[in-house]
Amino acid sequence: MTLQVHTHKHLLGTKGLSATELTSILDRASYWEEYPVKVSNHLQGRFVANMFFENSTRTRFSFEVAEKRLGAEVLNFTAAVSSVQKGESIYDTVRTLESMGIDAGVIRMKPNGLLAELAQKIKVPLINAGDGNNEHPTQALLDLYTMRKHFGHISGLHVAIIGDIRHSRVARSNLWALRTLGARVSFCAPAEMQAAELAEYAPYTTIDEALKADVVMMLRVQLERHEGSLFRSAEEYRAAYGLTVERAAKLAPHAIIMHPAPVNRNVEIDDELVECDKSKIFTQMSHGVPIRMAVIERALS
Amino acid sequence: MTLQVHTHKHLLGTKGLSATELTSILDRASYWEEYPVKVSNHLQGRFVANMFFENSTRTRFSFEVAEKRLGAEVLNFTAAVSSVQKGESIYDTVRTLESMGIDAGVIRMKPNGLLAELAQKIKVPLINAGDGNNEHPTQALLDLYTMRKHFGHISGLHVAIIGDIRHSRVARSNLWALRTLGARVSFCAPAEMQAAELAEYAPYTTIDEALKADVVMMLRVQLERHEGSLFRSAEEYRAAYGLTVERAAKLAPHAIIMHPAPVNRNVEIDDELVECDKSKIFTQMSHGVPIRMAVIERALS
Amino acid sequence: MTLQVHTHKHLLGTKGLSATELTSILDRASYWEEYPVKVSNHLQGRFVANMFFENSTRTRFSFEVAEKRLGAEVLNFTAAVSSVQKGESIYDTVRTLESMGIDAGVIRMKPNGLLAELAQKIKVPLINAGDGNNEHPTQALLDLYTMRKHFGHISGLHVAIIGDIRHSRVARSNLWALRTLGARVSFCAPAEMQAAELAEYAPYTTIDEALKADVVMMLRVQLERHEGSLFRSAEEYRAAYGLTVERAAKLAPHAIIMHPAPVNRNVEIDDELVECDKSKIFTQMSHGVPIRMAVIERALS
Repeated sequence: MTLQVHTHKHLLGTKGLSATELTSILDRASYWEEYPVKVSNHLQGRFVANMFFENSTRTRFSFEVAEKRLGAEVLNFTAAVSSVQKGESIYDTVRTLESMGIDAGVIRMKPNGLLAELAQKIKVPLINAGDGNNEHPTQALLDLYTMRKHFGHISGLHVAIIGDIRHSRVARSNLWALRTLGARVSFCAPAEMQAAELAEYAPYTTIDEALKADVVMMLRVQLERHEGSLFRSAEEYRAAYGLTVERAAKLAPHAIIMHPAPVNRNVEIDDELVECDKSKIFTQMSHGVPIRMAVIERALS
Repeated sequence: MTLQVHTHKHLLGTKGLSATELTSILDRASYWEEYPVKVSNHLQGRFVANMFFENSTRTRFSFEVAEKRLGAEVLNFTAAVSSVQKGESIYDTVRTLESMGIDAGVIRMKPNGLLAELAQKIKVPLINAGDGNNEHPTQALLDLYTMRKHFGHISGLHVAIIGDIRHSRVARSNLWALRTLGARVSFCAPAEMQAAELAEYAPYTTIDEALKADVVMMLRVQLERHEGSLFRSAEEYRAAYGLTVERAAKLAPHAIIMHPAPVNRNVEIDDELVECDKSKIFTQMSHGVPIRMAVIERALS
Repeated sequence: MTLQVHTHKHLLGTKGLSATELTSILDRASYWEEYPVKVSNHLQGRFVANMFFENSTRTRFSFEVAEKRLGAEVLNFTAAVSSVQKGESIYDTVRTLESMGIDAGVIRMKPNGLLAELAQKIKVPLINAGDGNNEHPTQALLDLYTMRKHFGHISGLHVAIIGDIRHSRVARSNLWALRTLGARVSFCAPAEMQAAELAEYAPYTTIDEALKADVVMMLRVQLERHEGSLFRSAEEYRAAYGLTVERAAKLAPHAIIMHPAPVNRNVEIDDELVECDKSKIFTQMSHGVPIRMAVIERALS
């Protein structure tokens, strides 16, 4: 599997990526962020397909901008308007696009575990744009890029991730990448949103402990996923785990607020904080483009 | 606000645009209509996002053709296939796309009043592709372009707009632009489709009076919007306000028929009239491309 | 009508295309398959609109890749995200896009018979990407291309088409093209899936007879279309007409298996056969791109 990943230049996750690999992607993103022209011809004549079997505005657009800035031809596939409805399997769709001569595929899907299987059968490089609650590596890479740019380093940082850890691929991808680069991760979540299998890598702390971190990363909460939840309302969740204006006042002067977006204003984070000085939320998004340029270039080089 | 508009080259509406500005857009559209090659490199390396929070075939395509003819990179966002479903607000979506480095945004949305707010917060120029029942400036501009091309001038023309004035952004954008350029506008509509606040700018007349105009502009009627309507059927509406073959026979020899499309054949206009000699309906559509080229170029210059 | 077709370079079907025309498309596809660079500038500055009033992943993508490899500007229209919902007719939509200056249109739609009517009214060349159960000419052309490439010739081949002939535009387009190029076609289908009007061109045989063919072409079966079907389940259909592993063992050593995809694994064809040595299913898809390049080039030359 590891060999596969290297041979085909897939990017399935941050788990297993070495510090050298992670750093080289961050460095290349920095090159692209500074690149003097908006559209280059690095990937002229190459076809990249964005295959989204799960909807996403931000991620798909960010990849599309990255692909077009690299000069690639872009094909967009969204499950909602496709024959996946007619029962065509994800595998058959990806094989079909491969047959048509695409050079790389960006893929997002709901099922867990399917992507690794696909990557063994498909010859073109695949870039994970989010699979189930497994990984979302480009989100973690842009998060790390944002932290490194702000603090100058990642090693030694304390990153607290607060929210629905159990369902979060963002939390997992950040956990693996941050640990590899020497940061300390802690989680903060109510029992029903904890992931037991991750406890050995990051301790669960109280919200007050979490507020002492260098980076406070809030996760989007989808209360509708939690039927028998302790929280009967968004207000209750906000009171217990939300980053309120009151809690934000306790953050260290140098600390930053992050969120993978889209945010639920006044649920996991107060409306007033989304664009406050400490918030890096829209900065994160702007870093998504150079990170994805670096990742796509890596896949096709 | 007015300053904002000028600084950012937003195009939020025709209201407030000077005769000089309107004329300069029409002149530039004329330049593009005559342009010898189909695709230029005027906007090479610039990204334009079409953000449609309300569906539209014609308008989105027309903008997309215009953008591609200018050599720009195009990103299409349609709410129906996006995470707006997940509650992401229009503002957050636009801010997100702005963060990713788009150079201009074309935007259509249902809410009234939101666009002016957005334009104050967003730094990239926004072009209104229709907002609520407020404005649809590029439609009015292509209508004026069509009139000017046919009659040689706009000043002094009598334009009768017939149909659901109350819900029509097309009527409003035409009203402001036509008045600024010296045309006389009159409305014709049943009481429930009249807009009281516009009465001071354009008188309401009978259908027989309206048929005496130089330009007879029919509006799309959506009877389903009018629950307690006087009209119990499309036939009843057609009989009272439709441009029937019989009524069309009474038009002045030099008069033209316009409609922003899509038409309801045999409701507001008879099927036989859609492509008759007097009809400019498909000509209007073909003028949409050079008008939008002029508008996008203005936004990005 | 025939004159129209030639004047405008429409491609409405394979019926009526001469052997010379068919062969010249296949030859040109071969040229494009061998073409040394992925993206040419043959159609630079030309606009092609893909107008899909019926969803399709594979066909739309295949056309889009073909159009982009020819250097054309591509516009995608899918009915599901358009104002066709608001009652805009197919004709009005196509006329609208024509007014905006597209150079050719690729069109897929559910109604039978409408396309021929459209082609008489629309001035830009139209390429049929599947209409009702009438024709799907580019699918047949890529099928013929696959057969010719494998066997070196089409004349004299026996092609058995198995499945829902009645509802299949693929069967019809293959029938007309194969007969013109001298192949022998036979059908195999339960009574309810037979098309009586085609019986004079191709005999209906038993499944055992069909397995003796040089080319065994399976069709996608949609059992939900057959309310009062003889088959109460996919298993029953598979047992009677499916290409099972057992049946595939009886095929001639030189025979090949084809399917227009998407496949219903373990209904009309066993999962194990989809990518077996005899299967050309994904090869067919890869041939779709050069065939569509040839067809689009023909439309615009």
